[in-house]
Amino acid sequence: MIRPVYPSFASVLSRGGMVRVAGVHSALGGLLARDAGFDAVWASSFEISAARGVPDASLLTMTEYLAAAADIQRVLDIPVVADCDTGFGDAANVVRMVHEYEAAGITAVCIEDKTFPKMNSFANSQHLLIEVESFCDKIRAAKHAQHSSEFLLIARTEALISGLGHDEALYRARAYRKAGADAILIHSKAPAADEIKDFLQAWDDDCPVVIVPTTYPDWHIADVAEAGASVVIYANQGLRATVQALNATFRSIIDEGSTAHLESEIASISEIFRLQRLSEWQAFQA
Amino acid sequence: MIRPVYPSFASVLSRGGMVRVAGVHSALGGLLARDAGFDAVWASSFEISAARGVPDASLLTMTEYLAAAADIQRVLDIPVVADCDTGFGDAANVVRMVHEYEAAGITAVCIEDKTFPKMNSFANSQHLLIEVESFCDKIRAAKHAQHSSEFLLIARTEALISGLGHDEALYRARAYRKAGADAILIHSKAPAADEIKDFLQAWDDDCPVVIVPTTYPDWHIADVAEAGASVVIYANQGLRATVQALNATFRSIIDEGSTAHLESEIASISEIFRLQRLSEWQAFQA
Amino acid sequence: MIRPVYPSFASVLSRGGMVRVAGVHSALGGLLARDAGFDAVWASSFEISAARGVPDASLLTMTEYLAAAADIQRVLDIPVVADCDTGFGDAANVVRMVHEYEAAGITAVCIEDKTFPKMNSFANSQHLLIEVESFCDKIRAAKHAQHSSEFLLIARTEALISGLGHDEALYRARAYRKAGADAILIHSKAPAADEIKDFLQAWDDDCPVVIVPTTYPDWHIADVAEAGASVVIYANQGLRATVQALNATFRSIIDEGSTAHLESEIASISEIFRLQRLSEWQAFQA
Amino acid sequence: MIRPVYPSFASVLSRGGMVRVAGVHSALGGLLARDAGFDAVWASSFEISAARGVPDASLLTMTEYLAAAADIQRVLDIPVVADCDTGFGDAANVVRMVHEYEAAGITAVCIEDKTFPKMNSFANSQHLLIEVESFCDKIRAAKHAQHSSEFLLIARTEALISGLGHDEALYRARAYRKAGADAILIHSKAPAADEIKDFLQAWDDDCPVVIVPTTYPDWHIADVAEAGASVVIYANQGLRATVQALNATFRSIIDEGSTAHLESEIASISEIFRLQRLSEWQAFQA
Repeated sequence: MIRPVYPSFASVLSRGGMVRVAGVHSALGGLLARDAGFDAVWASSFEISAARGVPDASLLTMTEYLAAAADIQRVLDIPVVADCDTGFGDAANVVRMVHEYEAAGITAVCIEDKTFPKMNSFANSQHLLIEVESFCDKIRAAKHAQHSSEFLLIARTEALISGLGHDEALYRARAYRKAGADAILIHSKAPAADEIKDFLQAWDDDCPVVIVPTTYPDWHIADVAEAGASVVIYANQGLRATVQALNATFRSIIDEGSTAHLESEIASISEIFRLQRLSEWQAFQA
Repeated sequence: MIRPVYPSFASVLSRGGMVRVAGVHSALGGLLARDAGFDAVWASSFEISAARGVPDASLLTMTEYLAAAADIQRVLDIPVVADCDTGFGDAANVVRMVHEYEAAGITAVCIEDKTFPKMNSFANSQHLLIEVESFCDKIRAAKHAQHSSEFLLIARTEALISGLGHDEALYRARAYRKAGADAILIHSKAPAADEIKDFLQAWDDDCPVVIVPTTYPDWHIADVAEAGASVVIYANQGLRATVQALNATFRSIIDEGSTAHLESEIASISEIFRLQRLSEWQAFQA
Repeated sequence: MIRPVYPSFASVLSRGGMVRVAGVHSALGGLLARDAGFDAVWASSFEISAARGVPDASLLTMTEYLAAAADIQRVLDIPVVADCDTGFGDAANVVRMVHEYEAAGITAVCIEDKTFPKMNSFANSQHLLIEVESFCDKIRAAKHAQHSSEFLLIARTEALISGLGHDEALYRARAYRKAGADAILIHSKAPAADEIKDFLQAWDDDCPVVIVPTTYPDWHIADVAEAGASVVIYANQGLRATVQALNATFRSIIDEGSTAHLESEIASISEIFRLQRLSEWQAFQA
Repeated sequence: MIRPVYPSFASVLSRGGMVRVAGVHSALGGLLARDAGFDAVWASSFEISAARGVPDASLLTMTEYLAAAADIQRVLDIPVVADCDTGFGDAANVVRMVHEYEAAGITAVCIEDKTFPKMNSFANSQHLLIEVESFCDKIRAAKHAQHSSEFLLIARTEALISGLGHDEALYRARAYRKAGADAILIHSKAPAADEIKDFLQAWDDDCPVVIVPTTYPDWHIADVAEAGASVVIYANQGLRATVQALNATFRSIIDEGSTAHLESEIASISEIFRLQRLSEWQAFQA
């Protein structure tokens, strides 16, 4: 079947073991992540906005992020986890968001406790959080809005990003879990994993904890597992590799005046055809 | 200004000299092509459909191709040339296509003389062409539909791709030019540039001729100029480099169990910020 | 729940009895049809294109028709039957169409045996049909492409519209049924229902037959049932009433120079609020 | 030409005299307003959200409102004034909004000083305003973002709606004008026009003032002109007439069991064809 059947992210989690997730911004990226062995993909708002040439700062709309996530899921047999920023407004916006993402076949979304409009966590900027209770309202609204019991909500706290510290992160994560979050994403931009390790050490709930090792890239997945997280999102390496590759490729074409030198370094046309499932589709074109 | 001003593709052509065009499927690709020195970008239906994980076979709709092209043009200060396949139907569909592309700020489109639905020219498939007169109707309809005198129509003949040979290619190109096409794209998938050189040798009109050296990648741009073409589209190397980079990156993350090894090879987060023009946008976020 | 649960069109059919379907082009129209007692709505390509100000002639794309149908289904607790014209190309386009419509939650689609691009059946135009076998290929492709056994395909023959007569209509309907169509739509633009009655008289299969009494508006539903059809689509009366109402309303505002005279004739603001389910949504806005 | 040429809203204003604007949510509504003699149309967020079956409460995204406005403008030879609510976030969101609306060919937008997410002004709800300076930042950002000097920004104050009174309304309107707004919209939901008259009496700037007589429908346009406003938006009567018409039509079909009784009351199929400009499009379909 050309349109793949895919498991929900909840069912991937229920298999046990570490879940590896690759950040992507296109269906093509999703297909390559799946081929490489990832368990799921992260429809990253950083990647999706970068692909559109705008900052990751609530500038693209829910419609645009949803279209990107749905396009990815449509061709993939592993689940998409959709990065939904702040939920695109208040609790009513979160309700519509859940309606739309679930209706489009997305099985897991993640919302974070920053104010709307948000700014990317790695940007040099103030990162204000909304009140704990307001975010719990969003979580409750989201869980109330879903149709399927399989639909999964990840609550992400930016307490460490915003400099509020360990206790606040823990306090918020517990409150979010109590409000109904199915999993917690604890984010940090420290140059080492220490504050995440401290969080995991103190965390006493059995729900999945998700981490995003962008600024502590040397944290090996075996050690992450040992520390107690169960989901690792490699959130933006694909995008950054793409930028590097396009930059080098385009510059070399200008420099060389032809593309013969690239032929052995880049994927073949027939590899593209394979990713497009051309032969399966051709069967329908008499 | 964050939203760039860009020249029309017609005005780029009128500068004289060779015009180098890079195939892209995203705004990000467009920005990197511009940074590398390209004069324009080709919103390639092969790249755009591959990014969506489907074949380049009239499966995506005009709406989807247009959205991709418009997203690219929105952030770019060089013009987009939109690959519009067959024009998405008959002459009436071409009229709507011109309305929509021109209204979205696209200054040049290209249509080809294959039957709808088309199949990618490199696919092992029959490539049927429509009658010369039917394609001339499309060209006349397109030229009649445009508002601005700047809007440019490239007529692409697939006569060589479909095996109809030199004379038919020449006959069609002349008819299309006479019907109002502003430029001719002559496509070939021969392993060498000979049939293109023969075409250029025989071509006796002063309108721009566009070539796409995918299967004859060693044809140097200086020689292309010498042969008489004035526009070269490097149509899919960016996509193929992206696939290679994503494939290697994703596999290495799984293999290594972390991403530390990638840090020196991939673009930095701050390079992404630069491409997103983050600091300019941040000025508006109090 | 704000996002409604809705039955599939197949399950509505399985209840037995006549199924009444209203043509609509917006979610609002769908809500009002439901309130009036209709069993389903027809996301009419004639209505949707008219709402966009363009002819019903394959000018809007699948993306645009799908968005309209999905927007309607999203707020409705009765099923949408999507008018999918010719399937938007050949069998491969039909496969993608089924993927997209089914993934968007649509439970029934209808395709017709005209050539692409099509022209509205009531327009003074030649209405060419594709070969029977080509249309059967589309039907088989569609049925193969669906995921859920609930998804329903209606095959519509335009044999009577195109002047090919009773025998051809019957021959095609039987072939389409044999190829896997779940229901048959037999269309006519005769000023009386006779040719439809003749068709129903001769029809000997137990699958649902759908009729569209636009040009024979006096055929009472009880008589339709008696004649053997089980689904009636009132395809465009809502659109035509809307045009009449807007025309009268806008002209009277210009003529009167105020709107006081309209207040007693038009719906109140609070009736609009009710249709928008405002109070339910307000519960989420603290 | 099928795609119409249209004047900017600024040029319509510069003609002098009262400018009459009709609220619409579809291209069809726009065409009928134009035929009736309106000078421009208002792409109303109340109408557009109602057509989608959701409240006018920042639930639809900029993408969705923009698509609706652009679809209307595409077929119309009078300008669209786009109701842009709060600007969809903060000043950075307003910048992107201006980029997108202007790139889509919209020549005038209106933003209001409510907090995001907003609630429709007629809803029984608290209507909080943002700080004057924050709204002035949005206005300055918008004016800085536009490319064409023709692009027009209407600043709408909800001071009267939110119960802050005459002085605050005047103070805000003056500040917004000073920040660069090209016109002021003063909104009221009082049952009579008195507070609007008081505002106009005190207003001492020569920029256009826009009013929306929904709750004071008996204010004749000649008196509005006399009072000093130059633009009147009849914002939702078309929607309300549509609801009334669809409701009556759908119920009568169910009641009567056929549609013969409607034929003399509703627009004909050929009137729909005229609105779709069918014959002009047919000229392109050989």
